[in-house]
Amino acid sequence: MKNPSYTLTVELDSRSYEIIIGSGVLSKIGELLKTRFTGQRVAIITNETVAPLYLEQTSASLTQSGFQVVPLVLPDGEIHKTWTTVQRIFDHLIENRLERTDGLLALGGGVIGDMTGFAAATYLRGVPFAQIPTTLLAQVDASVGGKTGINHPLGKNLIGSFYQPCLVLMDVETLKTLPQRERLAGLAEIIKYGIIRNAKLFKMLENFLNDILELNPGRTAKVLLICCTIKAEIVTADEREQGVRALLNLGHTFGHAIESLTGYDTWLHGEAVAAGMVLAAELAANLKLCDREDTIRIRTLIQRAGLPVTIPQFPASAYLEAMTHDKKVADGKIRFVLPIRIGKAMIQNDVPKSILTKTLEEGMNPLHNPYLPPQDTP
Amino acid sequence: MKNPSYTLTVELDSRSYEIIIGSGVLSKIGELLKTRFTGQRVAIITNETVAPLYLEQTSASLTQSGFQVVPLVLPDGEIHKTWTTVQRIFDHLIENRLERTDGLLALGGGVIGDMTGFAAATYLRGVPFAQIPTTLLAQVDASVGGKTGINHPLGKNLIGSFYQPCLVLMDVETLKTLPQRERLAGLAEIIKYGIIRNAKLFKMLENFLNDILELNPGRTAKVLLICCTIKAEIVTADEREQGVRALLNLGHTFGHAIESLTGYDTWLHGEAVAAGMVLAAELAANLKLCDREDTIRIRTLIQRAGLPVTIPQFPASAYLEAMTHDKKVADGKIRFVLPIRIGKAMIQNDVPKSILTKTLEEGMNPLHNPYLPPQDTP
Repeated sequence: MKNPSYTLTVELDSRSYEIIIGSGVLSKIGELLKTRFTGQRVAIITNETVAPLYLEQTSASLTQSGFQVVPLVLPDGEIHKTWTTVQRIFDHLIENRLERTDGLLALGGGVIGDMTGFAAATYLRGVPFAQIPTTLLAQVDASVGGKTGINHPLGKNLIGSFYQPCLVLMDVETLKTLPQRERLAGLAEIIKYGIIRNAKLFKMLENFLNDILELNPGRTAKVLLICCTIKAEIVTADEREQGVRALLNLGHTFGHAIESLTGYDTWLHGEAVAAGMVLAAELAANLKLCDREDTIRIRTLIQRAGLPVTIPQFPASAYLEAMTHDKKVADGKIRFVLPIRIGKAMIQNDVPKSILTKTLEEGMNPLHNPYLPPQDTP
Repeated sequence: MKNPSYTLTVELDSRSYEIIIGSGVLSKIGELLKTRFTGQRVAIITNETVAPLYLEQTSASLTQSGFQVVPLVLPDGEIHKTWTTVQRIFDHLIENRLERTDGLLALGGGVIGDMTGFAAATYLRGVPFAQIPTTLLAQVDASVGGKTGINHPLGKNLIGSFYQPCLVLMDVETLKTLPQRERLAGLAEIIKYGIIRNAKLFKMLENFLNDILELNPGRTAKVLLICCTIKAEIVTADEREQGVRALLNLGHTFGHAIESLTGYDTWLHGEAVAAGMVLAAELAANLKLCDREDTIRIRTLIQRAGLPVTIPQFPASAYLEAMTHDKKVADGKIRFVLPIRIGKAMIQNDVPKSILTKTLEEGMNPLHNPYLPPQDTP
């Protein structure tokens, strides 16, 4: 049986674009961009991990379709998501005289996508760009929604813009070369969609976790389609993150604090979000907004997937300080996304500091077991 | 008689905003922003030339309306229109914990407006901003149209984005403190609007040049209104510079080359545009696209205003090289905006190199007089 491929349209008026999901679709990139890029030149922006795996195939497809390809291979890693690296992209574009009609193609994970998107948004005040996300995290999260940007020494993604691609192509095959740890980090975001929006997806993950972990092509493409459909719906409803889009930040307020405190190079983003979601569920339960039964299902699935459920050891005050620097702060109040049951989440601005501190301290304790009723010490 | 004040709406759907033009309107800024900024904090971004003149009055008006003001005074000059300076704005915003609903207010000329707009476009992926352009050039040009950006070592405005303010306030009074040379540079852009779009404005400038040079408040406000109306119409029709908006670049292809070759610190932008417009008119005449009579009126008005009509001495090949790096290049062809009569201009992509070189060489020769028929050497 041939593996299915899916096409999903993200509806954003004149900024609408298509997401194509399938197995072995990478070689179609030239053909697909022919109708989307009007210029002759394509700058492929990739990194030194992805380049040896997929740059040749991508370039060949583009060349066959008549494009002139100018690739740029950047160092790999979140620590390079800086203005200095974006400058290298600008230099490359200027040296190769890319014009307003020429296109940028991001080939890699979220870091490559975010930086390439930001460069496309700001080079000559905006040039076309397309994305081939090669990690699970980038496929389900970073490549839908038009968020682009770089980190600032004082916080993640503080500098950036909203800028939509004209095509996103996801090839399930590219996930096979992805280290297990990064695959799991992507799975964290998939679990997130289940928690905030789709109880059936959550159930599907509980039932078929191994198929997903083993990258069964049909099942994986289907899960990608569900996640991207949810995200596309949310982004269409709220392109600039004024309302419902904020729900996508479940686990991110805690997650960003973890990343900020550990310096962005210890925890993967998805791992931080995983532990952050467990903490958000615990906070919701401590606030009596969510049944313990649901928070236990959340913690259990995340743990079964092999993702962290305990946050690193820092004073609770350090977490509070880091969270106040987060973009999602409104009027000085930290804004939390909290699950109220599997498939539904809400925004909560007013969390008493005492309950927040208690939740953080319990979350740091690897021996803390929220499933047991409090016991008397012997 | 009280001096009139005008309100002009720039129609851009959800990004529409108002331009308010008048004499002594600066003190209304607090009141005006109260209905436009939802946050409590306003970061005023200005420079060390403008701050001593207008920062106190601006801050006072904002404070009276209940805003918390956090001013940042930057060094003055085009050479500071760099990423390094924008970084200082980001640091200031982060240190003062500005949030997504808080606003930026640009108080100064085009450089301050461009950098503040770019910072607003990219801080937390976009925060509200307003502009008080205090130079004639910024009032008639930079503050309408949403172009924001910074320079790159290899070219002007290569990095930036399209981002609309929520208010532009122009106070004719602020022009009184402007050095004569900068006032003339602004006048060059005013003349440009007459050439590309409005023969009546051009005639008005020919007839009342002295009133404008002496900043007669009524006449000046009226001219500002006409220029901003023209620019607003063009921007509404073509926000992202795909078509008609390109006409606003009359004189800019040559002008940017002059600025690039002289290192951005010798010629003012408006002076370069003035000489560039004379050259564009000569090129149009050499291509038989425009009557000599009209090119003479253009050259004469620019010369009467005290603006340069001769371009600096560089090899024609250096000009060609500099122009090929310009953003307005399409498919490797240099794109020129050329007047075809007073009040109408067109785009020309295909200019024979020989005619271009001849026009450049004549344009460098201060003794070249295009009004005289060619004479035999004695």
